[in-house]
Amino acid sequence: MRAARLHNYNEQLRIDEVDIPRPKGEEVTVRVGAAGVCHSDIHFMSGQWKDTLPVKLPLTVGHETAGYVEEVGESVRGLAKGDVVAVFGGWGCGVCQACKGGDEQLCISPNWPGLSQCDGGYAEYLHVPTYRFLVRANGMDPEYLAPLTDAGLTPYRAIKKVRHLLNPNSFTLVFGVGGLGSYAIQYLKLTSSTRVVSVVRSKDKARLAKDMGSDYVINSSEEDLLSSIREITENQGIDVVLDIVSSRETLAAGISSLGKGGTVVLVGLMGDSFNLPVMSSVINEHHVLGSLWGNYNELSEVISLARARRLKTPISRFRLDEVGKALSSLEQGTIVGRAVLVP
Amino acid sequence: MRAARLHNYNEQLRIDEVDIPRPKGEEVTVRVGAAGVCHSDIHFMSGQWKDTLPVKLPLTVGHETAGYVEEVGESVRGLAKGDVVAVFGGWGCGVCQACKGGDEQLCISPNWPGLSQCDGGYAEYLHVPTYRFLVRANGMDPEYLAPLTDAGLTPYRAIKKVRHLLNPNSFTLVFGVGGLGSYAIQYLKLTSSTRVVSVVRSKDKARLAKDMGSDYVINSSEEDLLSSIREITENQGIDVVLDIVSSRETLAAGISSLGKGGTVVLVGLMGDSFNLPVMSSVINEHHVLGSLWGNYNELSEVISLARARRLKTPISRFRLDEVGKALSSLEQGTIVGRAVLVP
Amino acid sequence: MRAARLHNYNEQLRIDEVDIPRPKGEEVTVRVGAAGVCHSDIHFMSGQWKDTLPVKLPLTVGHETAGYVEEVGESVRGLAKGDVVAVFGGWGCGVCQACKGGDEQLCISPNWPGLSQCDGGYAEYLHVPTYRFLVRANGMDPEYLAPLTDAGLTPYRAIKKVRHLLNPNSFTLVFGVGGLGSYAIQYLKLTSSTRVVSVVRSKDKARLAKDMGSDYVINSSEEDLLSSIREITENQGIDVVLDIVSSRETLAAGISSLGKGGTVVLVGLMGDSFNLPVMSSVINEHHVLGSLWGNYNELSEVISLARARRLKTPISRFRLDEVGKALSSLEQGTIVGRAVLVP
Amino acid sequence: MRAARLHNYNEQLRIDEVDIPRPKGEEVTVRVGAAGVCHSDIHFMSGQWKDTLPVKLPLTVGHETAGYVEEVGESVRGLAKGDVVAVFGGWGCGVCQACKGGDEQLCISPNWPGLSQCDGGYAEYLHVPTYRFLVRANGMDPEYLAPLTDAGLTPYRAIKKVRHLLNPNSFTLVFGVGGLGSYAIQYLKLTSSTRVVSVVRSKDKARLAKDMGSDYVINSSEEDLLSSIREITENQGIDVVLDIVSSRETLAAGISSLGKGGTVVLVGLMGDSFNLPVMSSVINEHHVLGSLWGNYNELSEVISLARARRLKTPISRFRLDEVGKALSSLEQGTIVGRAVLVP
Repeated sequence: MRAARLHNYNEQLRIDEVDIPRPKGEEVTVRVGAAGVCHSDIHFMSGQWKDTLPVKLPLTVGHETAGYVEEVGESVRGLAKGDVVAVFGGWGCGVCQACKGGDEQLCISPNWPGLSQCDGGYAEYLHVPTYRFLVRANGMDPEYLAPLTDAGLTPYRAIKKVRHLLNPNSFTLVFGVGGLGSYAIQYLKLTSSTRVVSVVRSKDKARLAKDMGSDYVINSSEEDLLSSIREITENQGIDVVLDIVSSRETLAAGISSLGKGGTVVLVGLMGDSFNLPVMSSVINEHHVLGSLWGNYNELSEVISLARARRLKTPISRFRLDEVGKALSSLEQGTIVGRAVLVP
Repeated sequence: MRAARLHNYNEQLRIDEVDIPRPKGEEVTVRVGAAGVCHSDIHFMSGQWKDTLPVKLPLTVGHETAGYVEEVGESVRGLAKGDVVAVFGGWGCGVCQACKGGDEQLCISPNWPGLSQCDGGYAEYLHVPTYRFLVRANGMDPEYLAPLTDAGLTPYRAIKKVRHLLNPNSFTLVFGVGGLGSYAIQYLKLTSSTRVVSVVRSKDKARLAKDMGSDYVINSSEEDLLSSIREITENQGIDVVLDIVSSRETLAAGISSLGKGGTVVLVGLMGDSFNLPVMSSVINEHHVLGSLWGNYNELSEVISLARARRLKTPISRFRLDEVGKALSSLEQGTIVGRAVLVP
Repeated sequence: MRAARLHNYNEQLRIDEVDIPRPKGEEVTVRVGAAGVCHSDIHFMSGQWKDTLPVKLPLTVGHETAGYVEEVGESVRGLAKGDVVAVFGGWGCGVCQACKGGDEQLCISPNWPGLSQCDGGYAEYLHVPTYRFLVRANGMDPEYLAPLTDAGLTPYRAIKKVRHLLNPNSFTLVFGVGGLGSYAIQYLKLTSSTRVVSVVRSKDKARLAKDMGSDYVINSSEEDLLSSIREITENQGIDVVLDIVSSRETLAAGISSLGKGGTVVLVGLMGDSFNLPVMSSVINEHHVLGSLWGNYNELSEVISLARARRLKTPISRFRLDEVGKALSSLEQGTIVGRAVLVP
Repeated sequence: MRAARLHNYNEQLRIDEVDIPRPKGEEVTVRVGAAGVCHSDIHFMSGQWKDTLPVKLPLTVGHETAGYVEEVGESVRGLAKGDVVAVFGGWGCGVCQACKGGDEQLCISPNWPGLSQCDGGYAEYLHVPTYRFLVRANGMDPEYLAPLTDAGLTPYRAIKKVRHLLNPNSFTLVFGVGGLGSYAIQYLKLTSSTRVVSVVRSKDKARLAKDMGSDYVINSSEEDLLSSIREITENQGIDVVLDIVSSRETLAAGISSLGKGGTVVLVGLMGDSFNLPVMSSVINEHHVLGSLWGNYNELSEVISLARARRLKTPISRFRLDEVGKALSSLEQGTIVGRAVLVP
């Protein structure tokens, strides 16, 4: 089968011919229907994360996968050849405190496909170590499922973390209305009655934010962000900031925008670090919460929303051999919706 | 009556003769039995907070007060002359979202005694705007009660915020074993089964930390903090950091010490700001939580612990006219336990 | 002024001429714009609650009031004559643990208007003991505001209690699609992505449930309730039952309908008691939660939803002297929406 | 090997000679060091649960097991022959919502050893389907570990469920000071500062309750329970009832003892059902919570407490061929501490 593999950091992926994996025990071979292309792949391929997530190359990239069950090991239950499945990507050891607590994506020894020693989904077939990482979704299209496993899942978890703060009196600020942000706005409207304020830097993104349901849109290339927020919130300030960018600039602005008891959720990975003021954090009880990906049950909930046709998930299709083009378009910011590779 | 008042920032307090306040409606005049001397008073008197908490001088300092009901307004219920009372200091408006939610200390327009336009407890009598800010505590000694209203209350709330993280498998790191920290260690042992690791910089403080119940003590002037933590936690890392100092150094060390899912609670106010790394905050789901003082019910719980004789509360007594000495001793770090003025 | 007062249990209310109350201190006199007519009034007037909520008659009935500020005491802040206000009805002492924790409606010594020694809103004017029980809502119509203070508030709190259980995979069952139930269905759809199943006994109510946003409606006079639930949930069972009736029958059916980890919220007051099975409660971790009215902040949130025009609140108007007719129509179940008295 | 097996409901167990299980894949064979004898075994053997937990006989009984790793399948990680292990007994499917959420003991298709088709621990060896159900505990004695897996685990979870209600102002009532109750009292004191009131029916149990740390003990065969509670709580009522008996009588008394916002946790299984009053449940916001066994992380926490020598765990030893005697002693209430079979 063909697989797009990274041989050295900072190189293009190569389309290699490799063996189709054969499952045993609890393992499953999934025929890839679609593999989402993610900013994390770009970070990873650049070698930026080689200390945090060390791997031995070559490796097949891709952690956002959906497809069809091709073959199952002898201990697999509840799945048969041809079943449509979304692949939960936060593969963990199954026995550490995080895994046993239901947050496998926080495992102390993660084995994420395409980001660790396990090959990922930029290929014709994916080897999955246990059927317990698959969500059955017959009747759904893998092209729409694949982005749900990361772009769709990550903001869902971030929002669940602060759900107790979201009410008709609250304001939620969203930085970044791209792949993840589009889902974020939709979830906020579908699962709460908070008022959503989106921050964008272009007219196109402003339109997208409105289409997804944002109550207010601030184009920070045209308006002063903090004075617009003061006006919208009538000086109350923001209750929740979902920072899907997490650059030094967005984080500084986000923290400045908070009202009493306000919370910033870190989702994006653009910045290295940022500065948090002590006095105002204490006196206003500000909270800063990192949020990582999502767990299996959260993925199942996201898929239920999609199955009920309550989610808009615009995608741009590429063939597997167009992976280089997909990645460079993503880097240049010219992708509409989420890019998916369809092998 | 005599009152120790601030006439200008960066000046000594003056002992002035002023009128005894007379209560009406819900108001109460409290004869001060003891007034705690707090680092916040030093910050305040230096003018450091004049933008955050603007006031018109002169003002009687002191926000940690306990004493005896002297006179009550006509609408006061449940209190009579001579009753022992602790004064809850987080005076709020009573109608904003924070006040109505039970967290008056987070009021959007606070009127804290000794830190706002309201005179504080460094005096013979204190005017309290409503009996709803008093906790009745007959049979207890105001000298022991006064420090509970801030030094005793603040770490209690901080610990309540993270109580769900405290279990027999967890490690909690405490920076700062002075007035607040002594209470913090005791509460951790009294209200949870977490393992407590205290960080000190002297042999005296090490002994104090042990006496208060700390399971492990690290003297960071003699040992490398992070390698000691790795050893104690067997590389698991810290689950909760209670930073009662919040200097740039303690915060940097605290964040570096965290394990997966770890949380830092900011309690102290020493530093201006600190640097939070994005990637590790997200990938480990680290949380940073500001925590401010405590609310009325939390104060009531702290007083119940003291009433049951389950708290050690060492104090150093000063007369009202020794206020200058008390403040300079606090600044020099030579106070044993909490300093209280006894008018 | 005229006031509809109860002189003896089990008698009709009499329209009496009484003095207009005059406010002092924090008190406010509200000119009643509308007073909601509630099943609780019927329970109360029948003497059914005379042991639980003892009162001395005569008393002006009515605990669901909105109107205009007529006169304020000298300590009132933030309100002026003519302001539109909704009256939060869970008047508490302000100093017990429940009041201090933000749940004044759970006060250990409640003083609810129209249900305790305090006169209620079936009158031209209402005496309110503190402006802290008023929610300012200029620009809104008292006729729509009044029902929000109980019929609109009660299901809102009940739903907040179980919000962590409401997700796209969950099913919520609502018994009772009258005054409170219409709000309940709307809140479930506005603040969560749960799937709502309403249980009704007539075609009219089935249509209403659909209009309010119910995903499924079961007419239990035509279908077998439990088998319909099994079919809708694909044998998964119900996650949350909101029982706005709480008769012996609805509670038995609600408990039988629960899946693993399911929760029943008791809101209604129709039944005396019901039978809870031990083994299945333990083995399935079923929860049964009583929920009472709502607190001030919850009322404020409900009013924000209404202000944003996101709530349908059908009402039926009656004059004050038609109070007897309004009450008997309510008892006979012929009211459309919520009955309000407009003095 | 020898195994004590149930051939027919309501019969004595027979000591049969059966094959030693051989593990493959993730499976582990554990040499039994000790197997706890539990009231649930008596319920189970009587056929009382044959509809709730249907099984095909004969079956080896026993769901409270600890011992030594004897042999491991080829996919087992982190365990070697001779390791001491406690067996988590809530074996689940690993893929349903409860399992994925970390509560395997709530699995929708449970496979509990000794209570389902899987053989239990009343034998020389136990077959465990995956090493993910084992907690490594080298250095500890299986005789003390075994009771922790159910008697020690069940009250721990029950208390975690209500931990937010436990504070120095609260009162917690414990019904049943036998195997589970002894742990319950200890956990309440070790993990909270609530005041513990134990209800017993004999002088011996009264002494035991005191030894375990109970602040108050009521001997309900000598005192009137409700008036004693009123006196102890100064009419405030009980905040949390842990009912480890759950008979009709204890539940009725427990509910009557509750103060505002009080909660009953159902742990025991003695009664069939009980009556819950509607009006007082609503008006006081009473909660009734079923609590089942515990999950893997909770077991790990309990074992940490024991490892730190903070738990008293009295046991009575029996040989495997004395199983009949152990069961009848348990039924007659003459066991001191927890009975364990030592093969």
